[in-house]
Amino acid sequence: MNYSERSLELHRQWRGKLEVIATVPADSKDALSLAYTPGVARPCLEIQKDPSLSYELTRRHNLCAVITDGSAVLGLGDIGPEAGMPVMEGKCVLFKTFGDVDAFPLCIKTKDVDEFVRTVYLLSGSFGGINLEDISAPRCFEIERKLKELCDIPIFHDDQHGTAVITLAGLTNALKLVNKRPEDVRIVTSGAGAAAVSIVKLLLSAGFRHITMCDRRGAIYAGREGLNWIKAEMAEVTNLERRAGSIGDMLAGADIFIGVSAPNTVTGDMVRSMNRDPIVFACANPDPEISPMEARAAGARIVATGRSDYPNQINNVLAFPGIFRGTFDVRASDINEPMKVAAAKALAGLISDEELREDYIIPAPFDPRVGPAVAQAVAQAARDSGVARI
Amino acid sequence: MNYSERSLELHRQWRGKLEVIATVPADSKDALSLAYTPGVARPCLEIQKDPSLSYELTRRHNLCAVITDGSAVLGLGDIGPEAGMPVMEGKCVLFKTFGDVDAFPLCIKTKDVDEFVRTVYLLSGSFGGINLEDISAPRCFEIERKLKELCDIPIFHDDQHGTAVITLAGLTNALKLVNKRPEDVRIVTSGAGAAAVSIVKLLLSAGFRHITMCDRRGAIYAGREGLNWIKAEMAEVTNLERRAGSIGDMLAGADIFIGVSAPNTVTGDMVRSMNRDPIVFACANPDPEISPMEARAAGARIVATGRSDYPNQINNVLAFPGIFRGTFDVRASDINEPMKVAAAKALAGLISDEELREDYIIPAPFDPRVGPAVAQAVAQAARDSGVARI
Repeated sequence: MNYSERSLELHRQWRGKLEVIATVPADSKDALSLAYTPGVARPCLEIQKDPSLSYELTRRHNLCAVITDGSAVLGLGDIGPEAGMPVMEGKCVLFKTFGDVDAFPLCIKTKDVDEFVRTVYLLSGSFGGINLEDISAPRCFEIERKLKELCDIPIFHDDQHGTAVITLAGLTNALKLVNKRPEDVRIVTSGAGAAAVSIVKLLLSAGFRHITMCDRRGAIYAGREGLNWIKAEMAEVTNLERRAGSIGDMLAGADIFIGVSAPNTVTGDMVRSMNRDPIVFACANPDPEISPMEARAAGARIVATGRSDYPNQINNVLAFPGIFRGTFDVRASDINEPMKVAAAKALAGLISDEELREDYIIPAPFDPRVGPAVAQAVAQAARDSGVARI
Repeated sequence: MNYSERSLELHRQWRGKLEVIATVPADSKDALSLAYTPGVARPCLEIQKDPSLSYELTRRHNLCAVITDGSAVLGLGDIGPEAGMPVMEGKCVLFKTFGDVDAFPLCIKTKDVDEFVRTVYLLSGSFGGINLEDISAPRCFEIERKLKELCDIPIFHDDQHGTAVITLAGLTNALKLVNKRPEDVRIVTSGAGAAAVSIVKLLLSAGFRHITMCDRRGAIYAGREGLNWIKAEMAEVTNLERRAGSIGDMLAGADIFIGVSAPNTVTGDMVRSMNRDPIVFACANPDPEISPMEARAAGARIVATGRSDYPNQINNVLAFPGIFRGTFDVRASDINEPMKVAAAKALAGLISDEELREDYIIPAPFDPRVGPAVAQAVAQAARDSGVARI
């Protein structure tokens, strides 16, 4: 039986992958009077006097909402909020398993950006952080920006930033192997969705300089007709030479390809046209932009994908549990660029120079060092950048 | 140390009374592929085809949101959403402990009725039912009515209906002891908030006929000046003789007093003026409308309060866990009047005629028969009234 059939069968047995349990007794008159009325009035009044005590006296300190509108679930597109729930529950399972973060899934029945933002804001007092999930681009950028302005708790869109963190980690190690420097390499990306935009932004803030983004119509450059607002924004900081052309045109002479787009958008010939020691991150799921075998045959020195059946898997589970763990540990008010860069460095640093190989630039998802290392680095970066609150 | 101090100290140790746990493995590549991608796409697509499968393939079938705006928390008034959280968490603990219902607390940061309603509606696809909590009157009535119209899941405001169910149970047994019939007795209530209104409505639907509600200004009657809309509505179905006067005036000759208002609103003289075998439910918390000792001294034959240190405690924990358990067991689309009446009858029926005594008209909160008995009766009533969906 394949994963699809087995998963459906298991979901029928499981009937949900989460449970909300009580961690305090309520089985006697005394217990009830302490966990509930009349005793509970006191912690309520303490929080009323000082709302920050909600982190001391309730579960808020460890509680993350995983929120979607169901508009871009997996590769399935807009399947609606109820149908997105198995993914959201699964995400919460990963939060708990890999980060000991209590995560709770919420699917919100609106596609209106402002209504979604307002709804999440009205709920934000019940949580310590918000993980946005599977929201279509470019709406996701606007939603995240507005929520960051409104809320005093960290807002994190994992489809953007999780992927970006791991990509940066992988690239950091890959460049060591090919002995190139971030500021020198030419990068071409395919895709202009949530992940692509965030990857490019994070690479820029980590010192990479020469990046050209491509969408279905080829290179994105300032002034190209019909750019949506986020592409227009990205065109201001990428492809500064304003080159026009196909992805094939762009890849000629490039050092790095990063695909977060669609299957079979890159050919062996394109890889052959790249600079020496091509680095190919072909992360479209489930079918990559070019198959790892084809890329290797065409001379790619290092290949990463989103798949677990090839080496160097770009798997978000490497990042978000540790990022939220570290964020919650210091009650950070934000998950900022320095924290993401620190997470990437921590991930990359788990592989020593001696261990580093073409097929081992990214730690494995089940490496037990990953969560703690990311958490520690993120917490420290939060302190250093002034967003830690304890 | 009193409950208040001990509770605060415990809340500092507990740092929250709930935990969200994963009930499925995610500790291997295979497990991850089944609980999450790629396998999880299949249950998502099944729910997209048939949204009712969200009850089979996610935790929705057992998941209740406990939602407040913080506007009427305990007797503390409007302390805001964050400060309401210890109560909401406590409520969820009771749901789990007494009903095995997964309950999750949400405090919504708005006092606007329509915005609150819209927010809850947008979230309703993530839950199997909604328990509204500690919302001030008369807003709570409008909120509940609108949500019942909008949502296809049960909406239940426990402060109204939980109290009403247990009051009806207690009265049913009390009338047996004094050998009076529901349709004959004269009832006077004090208070016109959430609980009072729901009690009166439930008593009317259970066959009681002669009820007069009093607020701070005395008897409520049709045409009295300055009635808010809910009092005006209630005036149409109570005090049909349109008697005006103080609560003392109303109690003269009455059979039953039900107080859900404020301490010390009833005197021994008023009790003495009642019909033979007075029944006094003085449920203001923590200090009742008249102390049980004073009421007994003035001739009250049966006294109930909201307190655990006197006999006959009207404690909501007797009702809501079993009501939601039964509702979820048959996936009822609503919690309607027949289900509430059935819950009350089940509660009353747990005390046999031989056991029935003046100081034992209501089962104890920790009687293990309570939850299952209420659940079974509610499920049956849901089937009989056509709202059960499985």
